[in-house]
Amino acid sequence: MYPKPLRDLIEAFTKYPGIGIKTAERLAIHSITKLDTEHNVTFASALIECNDKLSKCKICNNLTENSICDICADNNRDKSLLMVVEDIKDLYILEKTKQFNGYYHVLNGVLSPIDGIGIEEINLVNLFERLKNENIKEIIIALNATVEGETTILYIKKILENTDILVTTLAYGLAVGGDLQYTDEITLKRALEGRIKI
Amino acid sequence: MYPKPLRDLIEAFTKYPGIGIKTAERLAIHSITKLDTEHNVTFASALIECNDKLSKCKICNNLTENSICDICADNNRDKSLLMVVEDIKDLYILEKTKQFNGYYHVLNGVLSPIDGIGIEEINLVNLFERLKNENIKEIIIALNATVEGETTILYIKKILENTDILVTTLAYGLAVGGDLQYTDEITLKRALEGRIKI
Repeated sequence: MYPKPLRDLIEAFTKYPGIGIKTAERLAIHSITKLDTEHNVTFASALIECNDKLSKCKICNNLTENSICDICADNNRDKSLLMVVEDIKDLYILEKTKQFNGYYHVLNGVLSPIDGIGIEEINLVNLFERLKNENIKEIIIALNATVEGETTILYIKKILENTDILVTTLAYGLAVGGDLQYTDEITLKRALEGRIKI
Repeated sequence: MYPKPLRDLIEAFTKYPGIGIKTAERLAIHSITKLDTEHNVTFASALIECNDKLSKCKICNNLTENSICDICADNNRDKSLLMVVEDIKDLYILEKTKQFNGYYHVLNGVLSPIDGIGIEEINLVNLFERLKNENIKEIIIALNATVEGETTILYIKKILENTDILVTTLAYGLAVGGDLQYTDEITLKRALEGRIKI
């Protein structure tokens, strides 16, 4: 049997998505046999720092070291635009494009009745509160193109159908640099429907 | 940009094999948004405990909290048998079969000239020292059935060809090209029972 500290470390690694017992063993042993003390100490303190210092932004649910995140605290952005994303990874990947100057709302999930994820389980009630209280003119729903993503888009659209808020979603189409013959039929159909004048 | 503690945590996760930047982001964010303080503190202290308390056994290279591991310290095992493995994961999976009552020697790698891994890079010199000084009658080389594993087997066999030490390897119950740690215990048991002289 592995020594106790190693068993604890393996156990800790198994708590992550996509990491089973074999992978956890490999990662834990890698920590000890291949990585140095400096790494292990840095890793441990980063875990504690993240745990102690980061919390969810009270407005948008982004992670922050303060009570409100840097984006929500920035008054130079366009207050009429709100981008809805599934999780904070999506927020950061959209920020990297430097093409969006509005604010965000992180749902922390999408509606998935089959997995028991309903309106209460994700950050939807807060979203509708914000839409009521802030002067938002357009909400861009940037969710993954999955059944659950589509369901969530339709739900938000339905709730907002009698308001003046414009509801949009990201365009579907070919990936830039992508090959037409490797694009799936549904995407091609959407790309054709959404064709643009040049 | 991610808050500083989160950037540090992502960076720490990228140091592991098979974890790229996207996966590291997913795992780090999972720590904060899905796992609780208890997990994060346990994980951090397991890392520190492993780092501070575990070291390589002076005899066989297994990980241990003492200077000599529990297996090497056990006088009730068969001193005439020595099992050579690539890494400690393999040692533990062989121990689980409860079919082997000798001692182990962990190489921490296999010969792979193409990757610059030669005799000095793995724990081979120590192995030959042990074979000289201990009264070992049979050495069972339990390496993965890969080109590098076979190369290592042939090298050890060649060095020992003018000695009285019987050199055996696991029987081909293993799938060729397969990885020892993903072999089920029954197959491993059969492979051990049917070990062949080389």
